Amino acid sequence: MNGNVPSIAAEGRHVYALRVYYEDTDAGGVVYYANYLRFAERARTEALRALGIPHAELVEQFSLMFVVRRAEMDYLRPARLDDSLVVGTEVEEVGGASVRLRQTTAAADGTALTIVRVQLACVSPGGERPRRIPARWRAGLRSMMAATDKNRGGVAGGSGG
Amino acid sequence: MNGNVPSIAAEGRHVYALRVYYEDTDAGGVVYYANYLRFAERARTEALRALGIPHAELVEQFSLMFVVRRAEMDYLRPARLDDSLVVGTEVEEVGGASVRLRQTTAAADGTALTIVRVQLACVSPGGERPRRIPARWRAGLRSMMAATDKNRGGVAGGSGG
Amino acid sequence: MNGNVPSIAAEGRHVYALRVYYEDTDAGGVVYYANYLRFAERARTEALRALGIPHAELVEQFSLMFVVRRAEMDYLRPARLDDSLVVGTEVEEVGGASVRLRQTTAAADGTALTIVRVQLACVSPGGERPRRIPARWRAGLRSMMAATDKNRGGVAGGSGG
Amino acid sequence: MNGNVPSIAAEGRHVYALRVYYEDTDAGGVVYYANYLRFAERARTEALRALGIPHAELVEQFSLMFVVRRAEMDYLRPARLDDSLVVGTEVEEVGGASVRLRQTTAAADGTALTIVRVQLACVSPGGERPRRIPARWRAGLRSMMAATDKNRGGVAGGSGG
Repeated sequence: MNGNVPSIAAEGRHVYALRVYYEDTDAGGVVYYANYLRFAERARTEALRALGIPHAELVEQFSLMFVVRRAEMDYLRPARLDDSLVVGTEVEEVGGASVRLRQTTAAADGTALTIVRVQLACVSPGGERPRRIPARWRAGLRSMMAATDKNRGGVAGGSGG
Repeated sequence: MNGNVPSIAAEGRHVYALRVYYEDTDAGGVVYYANYLRFAERARTEALRALGIPHAELVEQFSLMFVVRRAEMDYLRPARLDDSLVVGTEVEEVGGASVRLRQTTAAADGTALTIVRVQLACVSPGGERPRRIPARWRAGLRSMMAATDKNRGGVAGGSGG
Repeated sequence: MNGNVPSIAAEGRHVYALRVYYEDTDAGGVVYYANYLRFAERARTEALRALGIPHAELVEQFSLMFVVRRAEMDYLRPARLDDSLVVGTEVEEVGGASVRLRQTTAAADGTALTIVRVQLACVSPGGERPRRIPARWRAGLRSMMAATDKNRGGVAGGSGG
Repeated sequence: MNGNVPSIAAEGRHVYALRVYYEDTDAGGVVYYANYLRFAERARTEALRALGIPHAELVEQFSLMFVVRRAEMDYLRPARLDDSLVVGTEVEEVGGASVRLRQTTAAADGTALTIVRVQLACVSPGGERPRRIPARWRAGLRSMMAATDKNRGGVAGGSGG
């Protein structure tokens, strides 16, 4: 159903498909603004699973979890009932105890509808102090980030001029 | 904000007011059908608190909690954005390990919009076996039920034969 | 992604798979009780689509829509974070202006968790008076119901060979 | 239940109280991260109403509405089941066709839990082009903003003496 580890790491981008149902919309006839954060959470849960580092394992093996510290959302165009949407997840930054993701919700034709940036912190459940992300998780996130940069031309992309 | 113990028990009915916001509606322009269960949960949480038997205390002192075993919902008329609604909660039956409530969501003018009947079971957290409702809780629920019956004329409403 | 018309009609049962995310759960550690109605709505939307009678078409071509008049829910066992669930949708009754569905949410191993029965009424948008279900929709729903009965042994189970 | 026009404008801050119910929480035992946006929407709807410029009137009289263009959220501390929370709404900037609000969700003792900043654009329903905010709305929002600045000592607060 979802890509496997190598492909995700190689492509530098995880893609999650969903459909808009009545539950997601509001009386304005469009997707309710808070619900893009629900879509983003579904998508990044599957992205981690596809990377081979499922969140549940992080909790069980290391007693650690990711929590959202900050989110920035830009609403570009509305989505409507019955729309087929795609949430693309990319890794923008991996620190010792935090990760920043960029998640774009797009229409079936690729038009970007919302862009969500989330800063996740690694903590122990119930705790608030940042804790170091285990090596295997960090490595997985970094390889995905490296592939993103490469496929995009990278940060230093064509500094040639 | 909510009535106190004597009045609730005396009236046999707890009343909880709420307003409909965008989050509650769907693209049909009305309150999404599952959300009446959210309204009902808010209302019965406050009803128990007003009765002097808050749910949190049940969990902390007795390691027991109420879970919903069955719900029946009748949708009579839709509610819309900005509507002021009132959820009335009445006790229909109190057993050794279960309670049945009747919760009516009504418009400001009293017109009934939905009727929800919920069967709650008392269980230990994580468990599924029914457990006896502590005496004080049972007494509170029964006094509320008795007042309901009385104010309504009761089931055996003295039909005089 | 979903079965096509013949298979659905032939099997008499539509199956919709979903995963439980944080958004679906509550502080009790289980899926919040109202959210099974969200799952049921997703599943029956896809069931109608798979039957070749998508709800959007009903609205656009006939200015009609289905609304929920009544729902009955039995909660048998809880679902938890990360669970893979399956919602099975069957047609129990097709009237001139109404349909009754039976929707069972089950764990991956087939254990039933909740059973939802919904009574849908066909109405014009904004209206409340029942309206006749268009012939093609009724035929689709009836063929699915007939297949269900047959595969189950039917109501009159064992019609003599 | 809510302050009236003069007091809101004078205080430069609208306060909205709410309680955390099961529907708001997730399996982590805390309020689900997207739900602070629901709280913020409830609070700013009531803030506009208290200012005497209810959103419904904007839609009906002027065929205009506010939509969220951008939101920034900082999560400082978690809220839990049964907590009593307060959402404070302040106006940070009023443009010709947009408004920026700062909405802080705090615990009963005043501890800030989340800070949401939303950029609202005035548009015609269904449209995406910015439209001028009607004069009365702009005046109401500006008087509230002025009071905020004054009560805070303003940006140029000159602590000097």
